[in-house]
Amino acid sequence: MAKDLPVSPLSVPLPEMPPIAGVRLGVAAAGIRYQGRNDLTLMEFAPGTTVAGVFTRNLCPGAPVDWCRAALKSGKARALVVNAGNANVFTGKPGRDAVQASADAAAALVGCKPREVFLASTGVIGETLPHAKLTAALPGLHGQLSEGAWAEAARGIMTTDTFPKGSVRKATIGDTEVTIGGIAKGSGMVAPDMATMLCFIATDAKIPAGALQAILSKGVDASFNRTTVDSDTSTSDTVLVFATGQADHPRVPEEGGKILKDFARALNEVLLDLALQVVRDGEGAQKFIRIDVTGAKTNGSAKRIAMAIANSPLVKTAIAGEDANWGRIVMAVGKAGEPADRDLLSVGVGGVWMAKEGGVVPDYDEAPVVAHMKGREIAIAVDIGLGSGKATAWTCDLTHGYIDINGSYRS
Amino acid sequence: MAKDLPVSPLSVPLPEMPPIAGVRLGVAAAGIRYQGRNDLTLMEFAPGTTVAGVFTRNLCPGAPVDWCRAALKSGKARALVVNAGNANVFTGKPGRDAVQASADAAAALVGCKPREVFLASTGVIGETLPHAKLTAALPGLHGQLSEGAWAEAARGIMTTDTFPKGSVRKATIGDTEVTIGGIAKGSGMVAPDMATMLCFIATDAKIPAGALQAILSKGVDASFNRTTVDSDTSTSDTVLVFATGQADHPRVPEEGGKILKDFARALNEVLLDLALQVVRDGEGAQKFIRIDVTGAKTNGSAKRIAMAIANSPLVKTAIAGEDANWGRIVMAVGKAGEPADRDLLSVGVGGVWMAKEGGVVPDYDEAPVVAHMKGREIAIAVDIGLGSGKATAWTCDLTHGYIDINGSYRS
Repeated sequence: MAKDLPVSPLSVPLPEMPPIAGVRLGVAAAGIRYQGRNDLTLMEFAPGTTVAGVFTRNLCPGAPVDWCRAALKSGKARALVVNAGNANVFTGKPGRDAVQASADAAAALVGCKPREVFLASTGVIGETLPHAKLTAALPGLHGQLSEGAWAEAARGIMTTDTFPKGSVRKATIGDTEVTIGGIAKGSGMVAPDMATMLCFIATDAKIPAGALQAILSKGVDASFNRTTVDSDTSTSDTVLVFATGQADHPRVPEEGGKILKDFARALNEVLLDLALQVVRDGEGAQKFIRIDVTGAKTNGSAKRIAMAIANSPLVKTAIAGEDANWGRIVMAVGKAGEPADRDLLSVGVGGVWMAKEGGVVPDYDEAPVVAHMKGREIAIAVDIGLGSGKATAWTCDLTHGYIDINGSYRS
Repeated sequence: MAKDLPVSPLSVPLPEMPPIAGVRLGVAAAGIRYQGRNDLTLMEFAPGTTVAGVFTRNLCPGAPVDWCRAALKSGKARALVVNAGNANVFTGKPGRDAVQASADAAAALVGCKPREVFLASTGVIGETLPHAKLTAALPGLHGQLSEGAWAEAARGIMTTDTFPKGSVRKATIGDTEVTIGGIAKGSGMVAPDMATMLCFIATDAKIPAGALQAILSKGVDASFNRTTVDSDTSTSDTVLVFATGQADHPRVPEEGGKILKDFARALNEVLLDLALQVVRDGEGAQKFIRIDVTGAKTNGSAKRIAMAIANSPLVKTAIAGEDANWGRIVMAVGKAGEPADRDLLSVGVGGVWMAKEGGVVPDYDEAPVVAHMKGREIAIAVDIGLGSGKATAWTCDLTHGYIDINGSYRS
């Protein structure tokens, strides 16, 4: 964990992160686990900020996830505290005490209720969070908050990430332009259903919490829930969206509706952009893999087949070896347990169909397939031949780097 | 695939394999894919032999699996033909033709119906089986069959296996001793629910096919279905048991019953022994891992939790790194989706409880845990604290060797 990992060859640059009206943020080095780097991030939101969230489905979540689920009920947020280096998971009562102390300390600085403070922690599991270090660093950090520290925050929340992840989109509500900006961290243990460890998005739009939650839940299903690195499910996965209400647009009704159509489009783009950046930073990843499944019985069936392919160690190691091994793709389709008929299946790689309707395409052109497999971006297409259900999933290859990182995480 | 892999450090010696009355067998080099080694195995069974089988749940199975499922309906067997190097999977009509031609050729030699010939193929997927090579080698092979070639057969069915796998037990039916002997191959892609690629067992007992099937199905659920290497599911997994009826014991009723109690015990031992040998030859395996889950709501729930731990890449890489990372075990319990309460969970390694009822045991003795993690045989215990359901699963660690083998299988 202390090792400096080389930056993923699939990395993308952090975009210019503009201020979001109503958000002030900053980072500090609290010495929670790492030395000599920022590990504590604080955001303060304007009064009236609403919040929506989606969390891990892991049934043994960390204490911060429990806290956020409870805090989410009011739909109101004034602060976010994120630490890296310790996940505060499986820490019993000391873990709950750490969460309460952190929320109390931030609430006192911001001048809000503790339940309006949201918390997230990632890092080692099972060690008590040294929250005294965290609360000791908060006052100084609070004194330095600014609107411009998004890039620093994107770096401050990293653990085994090799590059910071951010995304920005503009949208219109009525005729008013609003901004959506977000950061994420995560590089492994990001599946099956919540594919980033942490993702925080803010917008200056004014959106009732219920409407925001509906859009977020749908957007996560189409982004983070379609990506996987290693099939493991973090105990800390958290996506939070904060709407500060500073933009001067027509009033959005409680139930949302069509006035939010463009906002939803833009939020979905931010979510997918960040989810794919997490895959690009998959532990040890050398290749970015997109899997398009068509012709399934239903869209849900297509999704499950796409994720079965994306999660198959044999498919992922074959791609690491630059081998267009469509036999392993067939195996993964079969193991998904979804309606499929071997004799109707087609499999393509890099835009070339290698197998059609249950058999090898006798004279397919191998040269472009070989060239495609040597590249960084791999496209797999599977047609089930049964219906019109379709879905896309994204993953990365499985390499020696994954073993290196995860076989020595704590040492 | 052509590479000589080092023998697994977890290997066990092939036991002395005695003849089974009513079985004659042999091996030959048919040149199907490998050069200079035996890749074709033939067994001939005495008239009256009954058969039971369990096959992969993969929905895109190989042509030989389809053939065996159909052949099994009569409950009668006279021959078994096994080739290594080509799985005859996703090969369309040429694959079905290859199966028919192989069965016809063996049936002509043995003097039986083609439907009394059982077939199994493993190796590369998606390439047409060159069955002319197979049928050309069969007559010479048939002329050399003997009762004593079990060890050669155990080697002849290997693909990426690094050691041959066999198991023998004695049982009594009435007062008569019978013998059960079996061989298996498989070293990866052995989960979730049929954990060997191929397993062939023979006995001189005389057991009606229905009774044999009932015992086998139950035995597979307690052995091969409790083991995993990489969570992938082969398209060729096959377990077949042949009962030649040569032993002179009291008649077994159609429905089996208590007269088969000791036989079932011995068959279960053979199945578990072979299943664990397959795990010991897991691709790249350096450590053999046993996971005991207790205190779950039901036995089924315990099994799903145990398999979630066994299939977690993060648990398996931690063990490869000799790190008793119980936090990752907690994560895997949570991702199983089974009833569990974080604050009641206990986790132990090597007989030492590291965490109890939701928190670290403050003064647990770390020295024996560290020593245990350096060994070859790792024992993980998880108590859910909710009920009396229990289950055991077995797996191996995830190492660089797995990537080496699977990232270059076809090259």
